[in-house]
Amino acid sequence: MDFKDILEKRRAVNHFDPDRDVDETLLRAVVESAVKAPSSYNLQPWKLKALRDPGQKAELRKLAFDQPKVTEAPVVLMVLADRDGWKDGNATLESVFKDFVAAGKMQPDQKDWFLGVTQGLYGRDDEAAQAFANKNAGLFAMSFMYTASSHGLETHPMDGFDHDGVKQAFGIPDNYWVPMLIAVGYLKPGVTLHPKPWRQSYEDMMLD
Amino acid sequence: MDFKDILEKRRAVNHFDPDRDVDETLLRAVVESAVKAPSSYNLQPWKLKALRDPGQKAELRKLAFDQPKVTEAPVVLMVLADRDGWKDGNATLESVFKDFVAAGKMQPDQKDWFLGVTQGLYGRDDEAAQAFANKNAGLFAMSFMYTASSHGLETHPMDGFDHDGVKQAFGIPDNYWVPMLIAVGYLKPGVTLHPKPWRQSYEDMMLD
Repeated sequence: MDFKDILEKRRAVNHFDPDRDVDETLLRAVVESAVKAPSSYNLQPWKLKALRDPGQKAELRKLAFDQPKVTEAPVVLMVLADRDGWKDGNATLESVFKDFVAAGKMQPDQKDWFLGVTQGLYGRDDEAAQAFANKNAGLFAMSFMYTASSHGLETHPMDGFDHDGVKQAFGIPDNYWVPMLIAVGYLKPGVTLHPKPWRQSYEDMMLD
Repeated sequence: MDFKDILEKRRAVNHFDPDRDVDETLLRAVVESAVKAPSSYNLQPWKLKALRDPGQKAELRKLAFDQPKVTEAPVVLMVLADRDGWKDGNATLESVFKDFVAAGKMQPDQKDWFLGVTQGLYGRDDEAAQAFANKNAGLFAMSFMYTASSHGLETHPMDGFDHDGVKQAFGIPDNYWVPMLIAVGYLKPGVTLHPKPWRQSYEDMMLD
């Protein structure tokens, strides 16, 4: 699909067709394309949890202002931002470093130097770690939503939920922040979308 | 451009053609398309600063590990994440609320209720505000990079820089975090890109 059409077509859809599933093969294809998004030193500090079970979705809905789309959508993707993604021993970081070495971009003895850089940039304090985890999760989430659109899927990113309640109910380890949930599915037949809401102009966005 | 091609084509390019400019009309078109990205309650808590001046780019380069792309790229976009974007009086929030009322999604007397929601979700503490600002800036930044690719531009997101030094040197108000800089331009002739680096698989990403 042409990107111009995706930009117009991607909307935060409020009503999903509960009778139309998103099969696992399609979800996998979307996720594995979306992960081509860039990230800080390629550290990809994000994980996912895909909820399909009606009981789990009902529990999540209770923690998310009772929004019907949480149970209507066949899949709700929980996006998890890893605030430890810069640390020695983090599995993704270890894979990234191996890949850098294999590609000749770093030498094996540069591991401590690399860890010093990631610690200095992303782990110097909680504020920096929170920014690191969330900005990168945002990059992935946007990539996921555009990729989903390109496969004919509809999405709705949600962050109106009881953050700590969700972490507790779903046993999410403490190193993760939950920046958003993304409902994934197809538009409910007969639903008309509102016109696209207001956006900032170029001038609005440019800081003097 | 087809989205599949954009996913392959978008690379974090290290060498920009210093002789090929990105004119203001094109930059504006990219930014105004990219802003179709979704955000928390449509609050769009991001601002931009576009650096073109060689002196300013040289100053920024010193604060960014002396990376040549900072001065080679004709434009370096500073992405600013507004940690106050949920607050009463924030100009963007005020416009968003007006738009909600005009569209019949909220009533004029729901302003206090709306501010209570945004405060509870995004302003309840510094950790929540940092997540709010950075995840949304990430959504915009990804949208910007894919849109830039669809217009034939190359980009490179960078967060290897002295965060507080950049804020001070460029007079960035305290409410903003600087999640990344994005170099924007065209690939330097004769440069060959490395193969795309390792990414997590679907299984890697799925939390048990």
